[in-house]
Amino acid sequence: MEAFSQELYNPNNIELPLVLHHYDPKYKDHPISQLIRARFCLLEVSDPSFPTLSCSVRVLLCIGITAVTSETLDQLPSLECVVGSSVGVNHIDVAECWGRGIKVTTAGDAFSEDVADYAIGLLIDVLRRMSSADRFLRDGLWTSKGNYPLASKLSGKRVGIVGLGSIGFEIAKRLQAFGCVITYNSRKKKAHVTFPYYETIHDLARNSDALILCCTLTNETHHLINKDVMTSLGKTGVIVNVGRGPLIDEKELVQCLLQGEIGGAALDVFENEPHVPEELFALDNVVLSPHNAMTTPESFSALVSVIIGNLDAFFANQPLLSEMKPI
Amino acid sequence: MEAFSQELYNPNNIELPLVLHHYDPKYKDHPISQLIRARFCLLEVSDPSFPTLSCSVRVLLCIGITAVTSETLDQLPSLECVVGSSVGVNHIDVAECWGRGIKVTTAGDAFSEDVADYAIGLLIDVLRRMSSADRFLRDGLWTSKGNYPLASKLSGKRVGIVGLGSIGFEIAKRLQAFGCVITYNSRKKKAHVTFPYYETIHDLARNSDALILCCTLTNETHHLINKDVMTSLGKTGVIVNVGRGPLIDEKELVQCLLQGEIGGAALDVFENEPHVPEELFALDNVVLSPHNAMTTPESFSALVSVIIGNLDAFFANQPLLSEMKPI
Repeated sequence: MEAFSQELYNPNNIELPLVLHHYDPKYKDHPISQLIRARFCLLEVSDPSFPTLSCSVRVLLCIGITAVTSETLDQLPSLECVVGSSVGVNHIDVAECWGRGIKVTTAGDAFSEDVADYAIGLLIDVLRRMSSADRFLRDGLWTSKGNYPLASKLSGKRVGIVGLGSIGFEIAKRLQAFGCVITYNSRKKKAHVTFPYYETIHDLARNSDALILCCTLTNETHHLINKDVMTSLGKTGVIVNVGRGPLIDEKELVQCLLQGEIGGAALDVFENEPHVPEELFALDNVVLSPHNAMTTPESFSALVSVIIGNLDAFFANQPLLSEMKPI
Repeated sequence: MEAFSQELYNPNNIELPLVLHHYDPKYKDHPISQLIRARFCLLEVSDPSFPTLSCSVRVLLCIGITAVTSETLDQLPSLECVVGSSVGVNHIDVAECWGRGIKVTTAGDAFSEDVADYAIGLLIDVLRRMSSADRFLRDGLWTSKGNYPLASKLSGKRVGIVGLGSIGFEIAKRLQAFGCVITYNSRKKKAHVTFPYYETIHDLARNSDALILCCTLTNETHHLINKDVMTSLGKTGVIVNVGRGPLIDEKELVQCLLQGEIGGAALDVFENEPHVPEELFALDNVVLSPHNAMTTPESFSALVSVIIGNLDAFFANQPLLSEMKPI
């Protein structure tokens, strides 16, 4: 054990439970890792001891959306659990994990409130042109150009929620207070949910003034929102995306926005982050956001609690707090 | 009657009820006036017949926040009613009107939903730094600077509402769905309202994470929010103003923001519109908006209905739809 990197590894922690620390280099000094290091012995892949210890690693802590592939798993024959730190798990080959009897946990509900709050903010922003109006003032145009153009009302609008999970429910709860009419689309109709269900995304779009995307990114939902769906949504319809970038065919979205085929879009996620299509920069009916829907100090604290809770439960052989289950 | 200006006056309308059209020149071609002209005979002060007809004018239609003073009223000895088109009536000398037995109507609830929607949008924006993040992306900084700084959560925050009228109630209803803790301050405690009431603005500020200003501007509420109140609110507290600019001492607000005495502000109204203090342009914890909280096509339709409803009721000797009453 003496061979562990002293930089990343506290030798006082060698009696703590061993957890493989799996992260993108950009997350190296992430506050979450720092907090978890106090409670667990975090092994690094880059550590000289990794080849020796890899056979005994039972749990992998995945920070951010760092890929967990079959090649990752091949190195860890004793792995029993992947503890994730995100809501979406498209970066983890979950089927491969399950096929090997490895459990996967997510961020659970840690981010649900924040993402829902942000989705409502984005929806108000794109309908009422709030960010655009802010730029209008900062550019000094209120004095020189006079009144800002009228925007669209939110209250009473028909909002279609794509993916009625924990986040979708929080969004629906908030929008009901605005007098909005809520409908939804998901893999299947939810039992005990009274919001009208549309079996296809086309039907949902055709009957909505706004779509809010908060579903999981899978092979089935990749490019779920394409030109056809946007045509169904129509020229005054708006799209809010707080899910994952590839839920939308971004090239077709840009074309639809440029040609006025839809009314607007508020995007927290993109296909190739941090790249944002530059054509969008000139549009006032677009709100752009840097994958920020879940980021508040409060939600990070909640996430750390969920991660530590899952690790504690794993080592105590208790039920995991936020285990992903087959649907 | 033939002497009426043909430009503004449709001779086919001479049998329609006479209404004096009172407006700032910038509202001359306002869509509201165009819609109302179809139903009523709109007399202009600039019209050559005005001196003859002014004695018989029974109702004055006030478009926007054009001043109605005792001098205005002195010219109209038969005036019985001022039909307003705004929620706030600080531009109308209401006491003088009432002293002369002249009724005053407001926009009633026509804007309440839109203003409430917008207030929530501004609150999310200032807490989560939405407009600022949008500028960050449009300036290409996501690629060059990396992650955007963390912002503050809305859900669960303690929000103090200043003025619990129709708009304040709509705001409270929405914020409850976000799990916020609502308290309020107003002229007096409201019967049948369960939200905790603070008798002073200082106590409200001291016990709030955010203040939302949606009260009437009067002599009593002028500069209600001064440095002392902002100090009570504290360094992480934010202020949303959808009421009137002079509710806040703008100079002290600018200083408090520059010196970090409060956490941020989202301002739809200003003391000297369209002038906005330029010191605010450089601040990312400030959201600026051009008196836009009430402006959607839908709320204008609702306003036109209220105005026509009030005019119809007046000429039919029926109760007015949105008459202002002494408190």
